[in-house]
Amino acid sequence: MTGVAALADSRFLRACRGLPVDRTPVWFMRQAGRSLPEYHRARGDTTLLEAVARPELVTELTLQPVRRYGVDAAVLFSDIVVPLEAIGFGVDIVAGTGPVMERPFAGRADLARLRPPDGEDLAHVNEAVRLLVDELEVPLIGFAGAPFTLASYVIEGGPSRHHPRTKALMLGDPGLWDDLTERLADLAIASLGQQVAAGATAVQLFDSWAGCLSPDHYRRFAAPASRRVLAAVGELGVPAIHFGVGTGELLADMAVGADVVGVDWRVPLDAARARLGQSVAVQGNLDPAACLAPWEEVATEARAVLAANGRRPGHVFNLGHGVLPETDPAILERLVDLVHHEGLSAEP
Amino acid sequence: MTGVAALADSRFLRACRGLPVDRTPVWFMRQAGRSLPEYHRARGDTTLLEAVARPELVTELTLQPVRRYGVDAAVLFSDIVVPLEAIGFGVDIVAGTGPVMERPFAGRADLARLRPPDGEDLAHVNEAVRLLVDELEVPLIGFAGAPFTLASYVIEGGPSRHHPRTKALMLGDPGLWDDLTERLADLAIASLGQQVAAGATAVQLFDSWAGCLSPDHYRRFAAPASRRVLAAVGELGVPAIHFGVGTGELLADMAVGADVVGVDWRVPLDAARARLGQSVAVQGNLDPAACLAPWEEVATEARAVLAANGRRPGHVFNLGHGVLPETDPAILERLVDLVHHEGLSAEP
Repeated sequence: MTGVAALADSRFLRACRGLPVDRTPVWFMRQAGRSLPEYHRARGDTTLLEAVARPELVTELTLQPVRRYGVDAAVLFSDIVVPLEAIGFGVDIVAGTGPVMERPFAGRADLARLRPPDGEDLAHVNEAVRLLVDELEVPLIGFAGAPFTLASYVIEGGPSRHHPRTKALMLGDPGLWDDLTERLADLAIASLGQQVAAGATAVQLFDSWAGCLSPDHYRRFAAPASRRVLAAVGELGVPAIHFGVGTGELLADMAVGADVVGVDWRVPLDAARARLGQSVAVQGNLDPAACLAPWEEVATEARAVLAANGRRPGHVFNLGHGVLPETDPAILERLVDLVHHEGLSAEP
Repeated sequence: MTGVAALADSRFLRACRGLPVDRTPVWFMRQAGRSLPEYHRARGDTTLLEAVARPELVTELTLQPVRRYGVDAAVLFSDIVVPLEAIGFGVDIVAGTGPVMERPFAGRADLARLRPPDGEDLAHVNEAVRLLVDELEVPLIGFAGAPFTLASYVIEGGPSRHHPRTKALMLGDPGLWDDLTERLADLAIASLGQQVAAGATAVQLFDSWAGCLSPDHYRRFAAPASRRVLAAVGELGVPAIHFGVGTGELLADMAVGADVVGVDWRVPLDAARARLGQSVAVQGNLDPAACLAPWEEVATEARAVLAANGRRPGHVFNLGHGVLPETDPAILERLVDLVHHEGLSAEP
């Protein structure tokens, strides 16, 4: 087999579909990035948005962790705010802070500043995807920000701990909230559609801030727009991974329309599976901070993750959140080996 | 009845004991502070640590919300790092950042820098407590930081999102970790003992960062030292409120030795009670960010909290975390009235 047919039989895509695999697949959120010395050498002093605009550089940064670690999937080097920047919303990414909006979303008039990106807006991203799928022997994961998380960025104007303006808007003006999140769903759908058309064979929807919501608020204010994105991904024929942190109470709701649900280390995988039901796979869930401990402790923690999954098919090993910048790459190399050697799933 | 006997029959202390009350008691974490104009007038440009060192000012700041809101308990104006500062560990509180350690805890030699504060170290705090209990007609809540949360502050050197050094130490050197958290438990026990001796009639143990731990790590690395603090409070004869955020998976463990468990808005109170069992009361759990919405929405949210509790005794109404600085005090005034009028518990 070659190309797409071989990828469909890859252990990563099989695990996403809940099918038996020879070894547990593993990749790491933020595997491309600040923890790698070759990343710093390749990126130099280009800003993140400058780097994303250069397809050859994106290709190199995306390939680096695949070469070094032998992970079972690549994840496009990009950021969830890239489509916002591409349509001219006015976004900067400030080192040490994160995305900052030049003019935060302040009311109905700002809806006009939001539209789905077209192929020209995201030409640089789509070109990087094409270059990557020519090179890669493992699946490429594309991604987008979920409407709630993007809404918080555009309303707060940057990363927020308590999301005060976001919650005040969603409770105080639910009509405007729905219009905003529908526009952000369209933005995610367009962005993911283009990544898949260019060759991405799985996507992850990042609802990084969803864990700040009560279950009732999640169902009313976040789930509807996210489900529309997940349904659109379903029609593209690639698996959708639905990711958040601190979402223990939201897992069953996040499973609707998803093929895989990301679980953080706060919920052991056996407890997560009990909430998620049989029809979805799980991704996770080693604590990224545990990777800063000596190797023997990392190994013990990783084995505990595998044991909590209990050799059930439908497990993609990952951290519960992104690789921390201070992580020693040698630890992640050993972690991939451990998962591949000890994470053998049940025989097909 | 007067004095302590009257307080013992107060609705706040009765609710902490799980006893029936005439109306649901309510107070707000950070009710004394930045959301009040009279707070800014009284504090002027004194730093937080300078303010804490002036018992008359602490008394005024602690009384302000009791006067304005008619809440059912006062909470001492202070900070969980005050005992660390009092023993000379070297702490500054930086506006906009939080507590910053001059020399973070870096290894076994730093254990010698940690000891329980004595009555002289905390003379200013204890004097404020004495002044307050002379003035107050409602119970005064004293507090301390739980060993895990204090350990993160002293190891990371300040507030931390991912607690990398803390987790690396606890996994990599559990012997040193135990020694450190035992010292911090002794510090909390001494501080709480003095506050109760001076007249505080309830205490809250703040494990603000515990929600970053997996259940297994919480049980191994946080619970043992916290339980020693809670047991010591039990011997003082005052109720202990055990507080954290993002602790949905930890509630049953946090209930051991506690009279009341703080629950944030991520877990509805009926679900929380199912995990906590019958023997503890609950405190919470309105989302502080919901208080930034128009009043009608705040009222709807508050009624949902009361409904989830279902008129069971043993409910102290509170926010799930501290009052946000941008909160309109008029909203909190109306919230206290709503809880007092609609939060009637079952008849005794």
